[in-house]
Amino acid sequence: MSFAGPVLPFSPVLPPAGSRLRQHVLHQQLQAAIADGRLAADLRLPGSRTLAEACGVSRNCVVAVYERLLAEGYVVARNGGGTYVAPVRATRRAESPAPQIDARERLAPAWRDLPEALRFGPRDNFAFDFAVGVPDRSEFPLSLWRSLSAQALRRTARASATYLVPEGQPSLREAIAAHASFIRAVSCSASELIVTSGAQQAFDLIARLFVEPGKTVVAVEEPGYPPLRRVFAAAGARIVPIAVDREGLVVEDIPPEARIVCVTPTHQFPMGPALSARRRLALLAFAQKHEALIVEDDYDSEFLDAARPLDALQTLDRGQSVFYVGTFSKSLLPTLRLGYVIAPPWAISALASAKQMSDWHCAESAQEALAAFIAQGHLARHLRRMRKVYAQRRRILLHALERHGAGLLHPVTSGGGLHATALLRDDVDARALVTTAAARGVRVASIAGFCMQEAAPNGLVFGLGAIPAELIDEGVSTLVRLALKRS
Amino acid sequence: MSFAGPVLPFSPVLPPAGSRLRQHVLHQQLQAAIADGRLAADLRLPGSRTLAEACGVSRNCVVAVYERLLAEGYVVARNGGGTYVAPVRATRRAESPAPQIDARERLAPAWRDLPEALRFGPRDNFAFDFAVGVPDRSEFPLSLWRSLSAQALRRTARASATYLVPEGQPSLREAIAAHASFIRAVSCSASELIVTSGAQQAFDLIARLFVEPGKTVVAVEEPGYPPLRRVFAAAGARIVPIAVDREGLVVEDIPPEARIVCVTPTHQFPMGPALSARRRLALLAFAQKHEALIVEDDYDSEFLDAARPLDALQTLDRGQSVFYVGTFSKSLLPTLRLGYVIAPPWAISALASAKQMSDWHCAESAQEALAAFIAQGHLARHLRRMRKVYAQRRRILLHALERHGAGLLHPVTSGGGLHATALLRDDVDARALVTTAAARGVRVASIAGFCMQEAAPNGLVFGLGAIPAELIDEGVSTLVRLALKRS
Repeated sequence: MSFAGPVLPFSPVLPPAGSRLRQHVLHQQLQAAIADGRLAADLRLPGSRTLAEACGVSRNCVVAVYERLLAEGYVVARNGGGTYVAPVRATRRAESPAPQIDARERLAPAWRDLPEALRFGPRDNFAFDFAVGVPDRSEFPLSLWRSLSAQALRRTARASATYLVPEGQPSLREAIAAHASFIRAVSCSASELIVTSGAQQAFDLIARLFVEPGKTVVAVEEPGYPPLRRVFAAAGARIVPIAVDREGLVVEDIPPEARIVCVTPTHQFPMGPALSARRRLALLAFAQKHEALIVEDDYDSEFLDAARPLDALQTLDRGQSVFYVGTFSKSLLPTLRLGYVIAPPWAISALASAKQMSDWHCAESAQEALAAFIAQGHLARHLRRMRKVYAQRRRILLHALERHGAGLLHPVTSGGGLHATALLRDDVDARALVTTAAARGVRVASIAGFCMQEAAPNGLVFGLGAIPAELIDEGVSTLVRLALKRS
Repeated sequence: MSFAGPVLPFSPVLPPAGSRLRQHVLHQQLQAAIADGRLAADLRLPGSRTLAEACGVSRNCVVAVYERLLAEGYVVARNGGGTYVAPVRATRRAESPAPQIDARERLAPAWRDLPEALRFGPRDNFAFDFAVGVPDRSEFPLSLWRSLSAQALRRTARASATYLVPEGQPSLREAIAAHASFIRAVSCSASELIVTSGAQQAFDLIARLFVEPGKTVVAVEEPGYPPLRRVFAAAGARIVPIAVDREGLVVEDIPPEARIVCVTPTHQFPMGPALSARRRLALLAFAQKHEALIVEDDYDSEFLDAARPLDALQTLDRGQSVFYVGTFSKSLLPTLRLGYVIAPPWAISALASAKQMSDWHCAESAQEALAAFIAQGHLARHLRRMRKVYAQRRRILLHALERHGAGLLHPVTSGGGLHATALLRDDVDARALVTTAAARGVRVASIAGFCMQEAAPNGLVFGLGAIPAELIDEGVSTLVRLALKRS
C-alpha cells in the first residue's frame, strides 16, 4: 500500500507498486471523491507530476486518470492549464446509511398484498416424498433429450441472426398440435397455439390481456391451484372462489359478472373428479351468454387411467371462448419450462404480442429439441411408460390407505393422474398433520393449502411423481401412525 | 363408408369396415349429436344390436360406445334397460358460423391500442444486413456451449424433483455478479440480482411491479428502444418521451411526476452518446428527490471501444433507486433468452415473486450451462474476441461512410458498441430510403423507427452484428447510390 501526501484533501489508497490496477483505483477514488463532494467544485487538482509523486505512480498514470475524468465531465481544464473539479452536484455518501425503503410503498396496488414467492423445500429432507405437481425425474429419457438438444443447437445456431417469432418455432407448434389432438382429441392447427414457458406463462399472458385492473371478476376453483389465482390477482382481478363437488366445479355458482372462469375439467386440482358432461355444457353456455373466457387447465390428462377421458372443453366449444392450457412440466420436466396455450383464433395475435413483451420467445434450442422429441415419437413412448408407472404407484397408495388408514383416510374417487386426494377423519387436523409429518420426513400436502378460504375440506393430497413405488406403503403407514397420535 | 339406417334421426358416417377408428368415430358422432340437440333429451336410443346392424359394426362396439356416453353423462339408463339421451343443455352447432369476436372488445384497456408483435424479416432476404440489436451468430462458440449444456443436463437432471427458485440458480447468480463487476464495475452480490429471460423480461417484471395502471408516469428516451416502451404501456403506464442530445438523455426535461426513468446511459440507444457525468448525478438526484426508479439498460457496454466507459448509474447510486438490466442477447445469442436485473435490496423479494408468477424460473440446463460458461472464463474470452470483431466492422463502416457518403451521411460520435448511427442530409428522407434499400437487399433502420413522435432526427442506424466485415463497404456504397437517386 502507498499513501498520497497532503496534496489532496484525502489520501487515495492504492494497490502495491507494480499492480496493473493502480490507475484504475486512483481514477475510482478521485471520481468518488468528486461525486461525494469531498473534492469540492472549483478545487484545483495538483499537477500530474505532484500527484504522481505523492501516490507513487508514474506521471503517465496520473495524466491518463485526469484525461478520463475530463472526458467524463468530473473535472474541467481552465486557461493556464490547471485541472479543476467540475461543478457536479454531490449525492449522498455511502457512509451515510442507505435509505430504508419499504417495498410496499413503491409497489403497484395489485402487488402490495401478494405473498412472497413460493418455495419448495429440497427433496433431500424427505424420506417419503409425496410432493404434489411434479413428475418422476429419474425416469426422464435424459440421454435422448441431450442428444436431441445437441442436434437442435447445431442445426439452429447458424440459422438466423435475429429474434424469433413470439408464437413459437413452426416445427414445435406443428408437433404440439399433433400431440394435443392425439392425447386429448383437442383439435387445433399449429396456428392456433402459442408456445409458452410452462403453463404458468400461459395463465400470465391471459391474465394480462384480459384482466382490467380493479374490475374484472375471475372465478376459480376452491380448492384450486394457488399460482393461477396469484397471477390473476397480480393482474388486478377480483378473484371469486367457486366450490367443487363430485361433478367438479359447481358451474351453477359462478356469478354472472365473472368474465374469466378457470377450471381443471379433466381432473379437478387437487380434489380429483372430472367435470361432468352436464356441467361442461353449462359452462360453455355460460361463457357464450356472458362473453366470458374459459381457461381450461389440462395439466395431467396424459396420466389418467381411462383410455379416453371426457372430451376437453376446447373440443366441445362452439363459442370461441376456451383457452386450453397444456404443459410439459408433468409429461417431461418442470425445469424445462415449456407449455402451450391453444386459443380461439381471434385471440392469437394478442397472445403473441403479450408473449413478445414478456420475453420475446422461448429459448430456441429447447423448442427445437422438444419438437424433435415429439415428432420422433419419443414423447408418446415416454407417456406410455409413465402412465404405467404412476398407475402402479396409485394402486399401491390406495391399497396402503385401505390397509393402514381405513376409517381415518377416505380416498376421493378420481380417474387417475399424478396425485390422489383423501379426506381425513374430522378429529385429526390435516394442516397440523402435514407439519408434524414434514418434521418426521413425510412430505404431503393438505387440501387447505390449496384453498383461499379458511373453511376447507379436511384432507390430504398425495403426489405420485417423486415417491418410488417401494416407499409408498411405509410412507403411508408412518403418516397414519402420526395421525393416530394426534387424534 | 357405411350408413346407419332410419334407427336414428341422423346417419352416422363411419370409416370402412376393419378400421380401428369405427368405435371412436361412432362415439364422437353420437356425442356431438346429443350436445347439438339433434338427439333430443329423453329420446330412447336404439338397442345395441339394432344400432350395430344399422351401422355395420359389432354389438360390442356399440355397447362400448353407450357405456362411454353413460360415463360421460350424455345418456342415462332407465328402468327396463333402455338408454335415453340425457337432458344436457344444447350449445350451438359448428355448422352455424363461428361467432365473429373482435379482440379489441375483449382486451383489457392498456392492450387495446398496442400494435401487433414486431417481426424480423428472415436474414436471407438481405445481401447487406445491417440489422440492429443482434450479435454475430457465426462467431458463437457453439461446440463449447453444446458440451457445457450436455454436462449441465447430466448434472442437474437427477438432482431435484421440484420447481427451482425464481431468482435463478445460485451458481449462475454468483457467476453473473462476478461478471457484472468485472465488465462494468457494477458492484453487487449474488443475492442482489435476478436471472431473467433476457432484458425484456427484466423490463416486464419492473413494469408490472411498479406501474399503477392509468397513473404511473414513465419517462423514456426519444429516440429509444420500442419494446421497452411497449411493455410499460402494456402495464398501463403513461409514457413521456424525453429528448436526447450529445450528452444523452436530457435529464432536465424529465417531468417531476415521472416515477420511472428508463435510460441507456452507457451508449444511448440508438443515437450513441454516453450520458454525461453531470447528467448522471442529476438523474440520481432526481430519483432520490422524487422517489423515482431508474431502469438502467446496459445492453452492449461489453463492446464499447473505451477500455473503461463511464461508471454505471448503479455504481454511483446511493439512493437504492437503480435497476441495472443486463443481457446475454448481445454478448452471446438472443435466442438463449437469458439476462438479469441487479436491483436494490428492498426490491429483490418482489421481483422474485413477479418472476415466479410470470414463468416460475428460467430453464435449468440453460442456467447451469451459462454459469459454467462464465465461471470457466469462456465469456470473457468470447467478449475479447468479439470486441475486436465489432471494432473492426465499425472502423470499416465509418471509413465507408466517409468514402461514399461524405456530405450525405454524418456519423454521430459514440464510444463504440454494436451499432453506429448517422444523420442523413435533409433532402433525403430516411424512412423512404430504408424501404427502398430493403427492396434492393440492404437492411438498415431509420432513427424514426425508434421514435414515438413524428418529428424524428433524419438518420440511419447501422447494426454491426449481422454483416461480415467484407460486405460493409459495398453495402454502404449501394445505400449511398440509392440515397443520391432519391435526393
